[in-house]
Amino acid sequence: MKLATLNNHSRDGSLIVVSQDLTMAVLVPTIAKTLQSAIENWSECKPELNDIYQKLNKNELTNTLPFNTIKLLSPLPRAYQWADGSAYVNHVELVRKARGAEMPANFWHNPLIYQGGSDTFLGPHDDIPLFDEKWGLDFESEVAVITTDVPLGASKDSAEKSICLIMLANDISLRNLIPDELAKSFGFFHSKPSSAFSPVAVTPDELGNAWDGRKIDLPLVTHLNGNLFGQPDAGVDMTFDFPTLIAHAAKTRKLSAGTIIGSGTVSNYDRSKGSSCIAEKRMLEIISDGKATTPFMKNGDCVKIEMLDANGKSIFGAIHQTVITVNEYENVC
Amino acid sequence: MKLATLNNHSRDGSLIVVSQDLTMAVLVPTIAKTLQSAIENWSECKPELNDIYQKLNKNELTNTLPFNTIKLLSPLPRAYQWADGSAYVNHVELVRKARGAEMPANFWHNPLIYQGGSDTFLGPHDDIPLFDEKWGLDFESEVAVITTDVPLGASKDSAEKSICLIMLANDISLRNLIPDELAKSFGFFHSKPSSAFSPVAVTPDELGNAWDGRKIDLPLVTHLNGNLFGQPDAGVDMTFDFPTLIAHAAKTRKLSAGTIIGSGTVSNYDRSKGSSCIAEKRMLEIISDGKATTPFMKNGDCVKIEMLDANGKSIFGAIHQTVITVNEYENVC
Repeated sequence: MKLATLNNHSRDGSLIVVSQDLTMAVLVPTIAKTLQSAIENWSECKPELNDIYQKLNKNELTNTLPFNTIKLLSPLPRAYQWADGSAYVNHVELVRKARGAEMPANFWHNPLIYQGGSDTFLGPHDDIPLFDEKWGLDFESEVAVITTDVPLGASKDSAEKSICLIMLANDISLRNLIPDELAKSFGFFHSKPSSAFSPVAVTPDELGNAWDGRKIDLPLVTHLNGNLFGQPDAGVDMTFDFPTLIAHAAKTRKLSAGTIIGSGTVSNYDRSKGSSCIAEKRMLEIISDGKATTPFMKNGDCVKIEMLDANGKSIFGAIHQTVITVNEYENVC
Repeated sequence: MKLATLNNHSRDGSLIVVSQDLTMAVLVPTIAKTLQSAIENWSECKPELNDIYQKLNKNELTNTLPFNTIKLLSPLPRAYQWADGSAYVNHVELVRKARGAEMPANFWHNPLIYQGGSDTFLGPHDDIPLFDEKWGLDFESEVAVITTDVPLGASKDSAEKSICLIMLANDISLRNLIPDELAKSFGFFHSKPSSAFSPVAVTPDELGNAWDGRKIDLPLVTHLNGNLFGQPDAGVDMTFDFPTLIAHAAKTRKLSAGTIIGSGTVSNYDRSKGSSCIAEKRMLEIISDGKATTPFMKNGDCVKIEMLDANGKSIFGAIHQTVITVNEYENVC
């Protein structure tokens, strides 16, 4: 089943069921008005939504909308919880190596996760507002899951059962603001502005054999300004799978329905696969050439993030965003 | 005007208007079902809610509820954004001093703020679940504001105008989990479980002259197990006022209506005022005696956080929570 959120100019949009081939959509207000509401009542809503999905795929419904022309919000336009891991530890190791620092050994055993802001997600095709190009805007291509309620201290088995939907994420980062923030030891804040997510979120069964209950074994394909930037496999070198990340997040508090957990930048040891963020490419340039040459994103640059199935069909639709310099900015602190 | 949220066993509860003396409350479903909804339509809802509030105070309404016997959730039982500052920099300086570390000079000019989890707030009188006493559970008594929408790059003037409600917070912290988390440089996660907020949130005018548009000039009173623990003045030694914290939070992204911004642990240079968290008291003990003697909270310990007006009346009602050891805990990661 594929679900998305129509931009109806409200904060949470309207839930739509989308056809498997991403051509048609249908509103389902009698089942659930919003995706958040559907997730909060998942056991009841899921079969009803699935019934609509089957009919939509068989072209048995009237009142369908053409999916490729409608304006979308992220599947959850805002959320109560967005926690992003850094599950591809070879990426973390690489970043440390480029700056000549050792990575602590426990990074291989104890997941990294950060608390993200979740009140103002960007839509999958929204411009990325940027006040100052010197902030070093970067994309991070990731996989993310949405959970139902997760109890305090959930086991990995419980965590796996809580995964109701899967989507892609662009965890937008302001690289040049990170060093000062990390020096203050309170984590990321300015350096992680609003993230964006793929047009549709899908139930795990949509991935067939590519989903083993814990991760997706397919390449995550990123293009920068129309050029292939990377296509590492999301199922390779993922040190911490999603149930592990979810259980980790629930160590000291429960997680509420609609929690989004991200994988962190997808990255493979096989560097021929390219990268899922500019920062990693710059680190590889530093290691091989002594200096980074790929610039961060500037006004007008665009990034496209997508995942294709074995037949080359887009599973989630593409995140496709352009950086636009913002002129209206009041802050004079 | 004073607003609160009745526990009706839904995730967001029901908005209630509470009388100035905290004795009566009334449901207002025709104006707004939830506090989040009221804040999203604040310019329309505020005068209508205020009309009810005036009538409630004059005892002109029927169908009132006795406020002191009803079960409450936090005013916002969950939120899309909870960002907590550390505005009383003398507290940060003290913590550093106790461990023999210099505080960077820019901490006096550049606010500290961390992204908090906001999906599962505790109610003002809810038990605090704790799996392991060795985690070092501590309270942090704070002031917090709720904002309407704040644009990207908001000025301090815009930020001040965005403050619609004020409340108290207990930013519960697991002290012994903090060092490992900070060493990983991704900020707090496990060490900041669900926070709790005061029974009522109040509009700034309720504070009269004690609110200058930027901070509250009244003592914040904390009792631990019935003994006075601290009563520092929230208007004294607040290096960064609320408009400054809000503008800081909006530097790289807008903030959506219902954003909660916290002050951080309230702390005065005048140590005779006591402290607003156990950690600060322990730091003072280390500095004066060479070792900390006040233990962190254990099963059965209770904390009470309150602010009284010039006449000794409680403004927000009291946060009053007891630590309860949790036995149901699945995690075997």
